[in-house]
Amino acid sequence: MWVRRCVIRVGDLGEFGAVSRISGRLPQGASVLLGPGDDAAMVSAPDGRVVVSTDLLLEGRHFRRDWSSGYDVGRKAAAQNLADIAAMGAVPTSLVVGLGIPADLPVDWLDALTDGFRDECAVVGASVVGGDIARSDLVVLGVTALGDLGGRPPVTRSGARPGQVVAVAGRLGHAAAGLALLEAGREVPRDAGALFEAVEAHRRPCPPYACGPEAARLGATAMLDVSDGLLQDLGHLARAGGVRVELDPDAFTVGEPVAAAAKELGADPVDWVLTGGEDHALAAVFPAGVALGDAWQVVGAVVEGEGVAVRGRDVGRGGWDHFQ
Amino acid sequence: MWVRRCVIRVGDLGEFGAVSRISGRLPQGASVLLGPGDDAAMVSAPDGRVVVSTDLLLEGRHFRRDWSSGYDVGRKAAAQNLADIAAMGAVPTSLVVGLGIPADLPVDWLDALTDGFRDECAVVGASVVGGDIARSDLVVLGVTALGDLGGRPPVTRSGARPGQVVAVAGRLGHAAAGLALLEAGREVPRDAGALFEAVEAHRRPCPPYACGPEAARLGATAMLDVSDGLLQDLGHLARAGGVRVELDPDAFTVGEPVAAAAKELGADPVDWVLTGGEDHALAAVFPAGVALGDAWQVVGAVVEGEGVAVRGRDVGRGGWDHFQ
Repeated sequence: MWVRRCVIRVGDLGEFGAVSRISGRLPQGASVLLGPGDDAAMVSAPDGRVVVSTDLLLEGRHFRRDWSSGYDVGRKAAAQNLADIAAMGAVPTSLVVGLGIPADLPVDWLDALTDGFRDECAVVGASVVGGDIARSDLVVLGVTALGDLGGRPPVTRSGARPGQVVAVAGRLGHAAAGLALLEAGREVPRDAGALFEAVEAHRRPCPPYACGPEAARLGATAMLDVSDGLLQDLGHLARAGGVRVELDPDAFTVGEPVAAAAKELGADPVDWVLTGGEDHALAAVFPAGVALGDAWQVVGAVVEGEGVAVRGRDVGRGGWDHFQ
Repeated sequence: MWVRRCVIRVGDLGEFGAVSRISGRLPQGASVLLGPGDDAAMVSAPDGRVVVSTDLLLEGRHFRRDWSSGYDVGRKAAAQNLADIAAMGAVPTSLVVGLGIPADLPVDWLDALTDGFRDECAVVGASVVGGDIARSDLVVLGVTALGDLGGRPPVTRSGARPGQVVAVAGRLGHAAAGLALLEAGREVPRDAGALFEAVEAHRRPCPPYACGPEAARLGATAMLDVSDGLLQDLGHLARAGGVRVELDPDAFTVGEPVAAAAKELGADPVDWVLTGGEDHALAAVFPAGVALGDAWQVVGAVVEGEGVAVRGRDVGRGGWDHFQ
């Protein structure tokens, strides 16, 4: 006997049905003074200032539904915005999400997306407080995160000064290694060990959120989250501070997933570490001599000059691979 | 002698060029503590609470580039978000914008879009404080607005009580009339008087922003902005408050553009007034006897019961036109 499983599509729910279904899956935390369902939400901003960042994620450009589940996409979309808040030294309080979805999207996918947002927010104690839904040919996510600085000054990109040290927290190169495996068409099943970890890192970044406010308390003078690749992002930091950043490539730990993927594909693991984006590690500059916790790894120094150098050689605009 | 005008496309600027071009056109107001260019922006939230709302606008669904200029789209995208903030009784402070654009989009269009955002924000003293840019086949806008309540409680949708009055501020039916003209394929040149005004109303809503905080000060018990049509939106308000809303269709002023378009197309102008969205008028409920300013027009009453009625007849889920 065959049982035909009926797939419920978002179009069957209608706009208000979809909104209500999403809202019903989203717990509201302590910062939320008014949650979803009105013209706007209201969030606590005890600091008297609010930190805000937004990102747009487009299907086919930032994620693929055949490579990532709805849950993965929700976690990743939340993570990359929450990481921007942490990179200011702030604690994320809330997200709002503008969601474009095809009418034939299975409701299960929407539920999983919502749960991904919920679970990534739970890591930092934030909540999805509101959103908007529209019909779209492809999945589109407009995500905005708010955060609170707890009375601290924000850690911007521009405060690096000669004599200070550059440190990183979080994974580097993992997401790039995983993406390379997917792009190469490798089948990477769940039991593939480090290779599967790399692919999972592409699907779900794991930003070191707590290191953001920690860095601020430790006296970080500049910080950013690594979204376009360490060399490129440190280029912004160097330019904003009017300084030069010199990196020691031997100071980086190459993660096991990165090493395994490099071996599998015959690639250079350090290339992914230095140029891979989407892990949303934090890179920060500290005064020399500050005792950093275990999460931070000193990888370079700030000196007079401009640009970014690896082992003394300038990184060009084209990036690291141009001078290998 | 022919001069060939070279069209510069967004793809020629690159991502950072486009970001820098946009940022350069955006003045930063008094609420902005840190503007574009870092991982996140920082905005003043003197109230200790922040009001936040987001909308997604998609080319082909919410606007058409052959019907609206870049400037129009910018003004409209800003307006509909700023109106959500006003509808809570708050004063908008800032916007962030996630922008998906095709590489072949003329830079002039992007400049005009930016100027539209700038000018609509200037109406309320808000600023575009940050954003994100991505390549997309169609223009996509994820817009988030923040606002400050100045110590007042928010005016939600749920506070309407029997015995109170329903009032509206701002235009109703204008945008719907203009859209109907465009959909009917009417050429409506700049010298077409009221017909052109209707089309312009579709392109650029004109929300009565100041009426939001004013309503809060006058003691409004419920409020929302009319984005889906007055009947449908008042249905949300009735449901949220557990009350019934009774409207008097003769109490509405039918604007000249609405009347002219109705005559042109043989349509019922009151239908547009009651069901047309996108003008972003404000609808609010006040205790009986409150002296309302000239901007507000009393159009109905709150009574015991449920749903929305026009001249005593229930408005069904299908809307007004089902019982004409």
